[in-house]
Amino acid sequence: MLELRLVQGSLLKKVLESIKDLVNDANFDCSATGFSLQAMDSSHVSLVALLLRSEGFEHYRCDRKLSMGMNLGNMSRMLKCAGNDDIITLKADDDSDTVTFMFESATQDKISDFEMKLMDIDSEHLGIPDAEYQAIVRMPSAEFARICKDLATIGDTVVISVTKEGVKFSTAGDIGTANIVLRQNTTVDKPEEATIIEMNSLVSLTFALRFMNSFTKATPLSNTVTISLSSELPVVVEYKIAEMGYIRFYLAPKVEDEMEGD
Amino acid sequence: MLELRLVQGSLLKKVLESIKDLVNDANFDCSATGFSLQAMDSSHVSLVALLLRSEGFEHYRCDRKLSMGMNLGNMSRMLKCAGNDDIITLKADDDSDTVTFMFESATQDKISDFEMKLMDIDSEHLGIPDAEYQAIVRMPSAEFARICKDLATIGDTVVISVTKEGVKFSTAGDIGTANIVLRQNTTVDKPEEATIIEMNSLVSLTFALRFMNSFTKATPLSNTVTISLSSELPVVVEYKIAEMGYIRFYLAPKVEDEMEGD
Amino acid sequence: MLELRLVQGSLLKKVLESIKDLVNDANFDCSATGFSLQAMDSSHVSLVALLLRSEGFEHYRCDRKLSMGMNLGNMSRMLKCAGNDDIITLKADDDSDTVTFMFESATQDKISDFEMKLMDIDSEHLGIPDAEYQAIVRMPSAEFARICKDLATIGDTVVISVTKEGVKFSTAGDIGTANIVLRQNTTVDKPEEATIIEMNSLVSLTFALRFMNSFTKATPLSNTVTISLSSELPVVVEYKIAEMGYIRFYLAPKVEDEMEGD
Repeated sequence: MLELRLVQGSLLKKVLESIKDLVNDANFDCSATGFSLQAMDSSHVSLVALLLRSEGFEHYRCDRKLSMGMNLGNMSRMLKCAGNDDIITLKADDDSDTVTFMFESATQDKISDFEMKLMDIDSEHLGIPDAEYQAIVRMPSAEFARICKDLATIGDTVVISVTKEGVKFSTAGDIGTANIVLRQNTTVDKPEEATIIEMNSLVSLTFALRFMNSFTKATPLSNTVTISLSSELPVVVEYKIAEMGYIRFYLAPKVEDEMEGD
Repeated sequence: MLELRLVQGSLLKKVLESIKDLVNDANFDCSATGFSLQAMDSSHVSLVALLLRSEGFEHYRCDRKLSMGMNLGNMSRMLKCAGNDDIITLKADDDSDTVTFMFESATQDKISDFEMKLMDIDSEHLGIPDAEYQAIVRMPSAEFARICKDLATIGDTVVISVTKEGVKFSTAGDIGTANIVLRQNTTVDKPEEATIIEMNSLVSLTFALRFMNSFTKATPLSNTVTISLSSELPVVVEYKIAEMGYIRFYLAPKVEDEMEGD
Repeated sequence: MLELRLVQGSLLKKVLESIKDLVNDANFDCSATGFSLQAMDSSHVSLVALLLRSEGFEHYRCDRKLSMGMNLGNMSRMLKCAGNDDIITLKADDDSDTVTFMFESATQDKISDFEMKLMDIDSEHLGIPDAEYQAIVRMPSAEFARICKDLATIGDTVVISVTKEGVKFSTAGDIGTANIVLRQNTTVDKPEEATIIEMNSLVSLTFALRFMNSFTKATPLSNTVTISLSSELPVVVEYKIAEMGYIRFYLAPKVEDEMEGD
């Protein structure tokens, strides 16, 4: 039996909003340690990995490992019916083909049960090895979202270049070119407004803006975003989920030949 | 001659917004006692009844009974030109084929006259007898609107079931099922937040969510809504209009056979 | 070489928003005295004239007269990437076929360069002689925008009639007629809320609402608008740009025959 009670139900609502446009169907994996998901986007280009650790739930009961296939669009439709201050409890019997989302209002005057059919989804779980990155940029998530949105009005790809002084986002399109430079800045009033660069070596990589803009739908989950870059590795765009875990998006850089052939 | 001066002109704007999508054309009936309307929706399934009592107007002159046929879409377009703080005066000569809406700004610096052509509309006035209901639920109107909107993302019909403890709204659709229970709650800070149930006998009735969602367009008119239910009668969804009257929507329950054949 | 630094960059953003839907391509003319534009709308019916005087810029360098052809849609897309508190600097080399927009955030932590291709645009500069007008109305710009928007829900043209007491805006359409009268009012709390009429002789002129509504996109630039009317002249709808200049729209009145033939 599975019973996960999340006091800050709005977190789960935000998680679904950040991935439902990228991934149609996915298996949620429940174990004693937490509630997780790993899935390729529907075009099989990027990967999303979610972890909500068991400690972050008010109540967490998972008798045995369970993999529940859900249509994320339908799940999102149900979670949208939860109030932002509602407590959300996820329940499933071990051999059931349904999952139940229970929403309790803060005053306990309104209790909702939404039952959704589960799906059988084939999926293979990729092992993602820990890696050393050439550069790691931590910056305000809203600023990253704004930059990706702005650049997409000019071009299709973004070149992210990191030096010790700052990070540059560049694009080019029919109407012209754009370069946006954010300087390293650690002396800010609020820690979440800092732009912090850890750099081992210079790195400059090109990515499709369409995916970057999709990843930024996770912005409401966290004030900051961390971007880890290495020439031979997919970029990792990570949003921490307060005291519970994270949502990470992986996207391979475009190689030069691909760029020229675009 | 007809001359009705309504200081809180925004009320009339809200009335039009709540019925213009349900009813295309309707007769407004003016008499010494008030300004009223009764009309079937364009699919002839539900009925709307409006009353604005003469006492609620700052000035109310209606020399003889008058029935004025109006296109509610056009009337709404004109009323949208009134400011929210404007005084609205409705004027018509006895044999005129036009009605004039006058809008005065609070400062009297802006005076607008909108003249609209009247229409000849055949209509029969239904007598609606007073009835005893099995259950009457009074609840916050915004909560009722939210529930109808949420359930419509899952299914097409809502089952409303009333017990002494609370009222349950249920639906089912392709992606699953939903049950929302509101408990009776009279110990609230603000009286308009209460959910109050008067019950003579258990009742459980099914309605088309499409109409319920249309009725909830009247939500801005009142903080509370009253839902009166009986097995053999149309449900009455009533929004009181402060100190002036009401807007009531009537909708027949779906019968079981109909449900199964859906 | 050209280098214009505008501390209140949002002004330039608002200028573009007010003309980009009216004019597709236009030459910006730079001289020692200021940055200006004159262009017919794409249907060659109305004229827009913009002036930003050199004194209004924090830094203004223009070595020789320069006419830069820009696509206003593309320019607007780039300026939308500037933050509302950004400083905007416009740079061009004398013989360059590009212009650069530089955006600096208030904290100087984010610096963006957007480079746009220039175009060759044929244009003739019309001399607009100073004229005496029969009536000049100064009124709150938001009120003028509201009136034009409201009347356009009823009819296609507006008759603007000025008397010593006030200004009347009238229209007629299939569903009825509308008259909106604003009284002269100089005793207001805030000077920008005044409606001030200077009148030499009665005047009543008819204009296409489509263009008026387009002009009102300049509303965010100024709290007030000035409308100058004469029977034999195009109306001038002017929005002052604080301490820097103005944006003026010119539109010929409709003549009676034209009206009847509509």
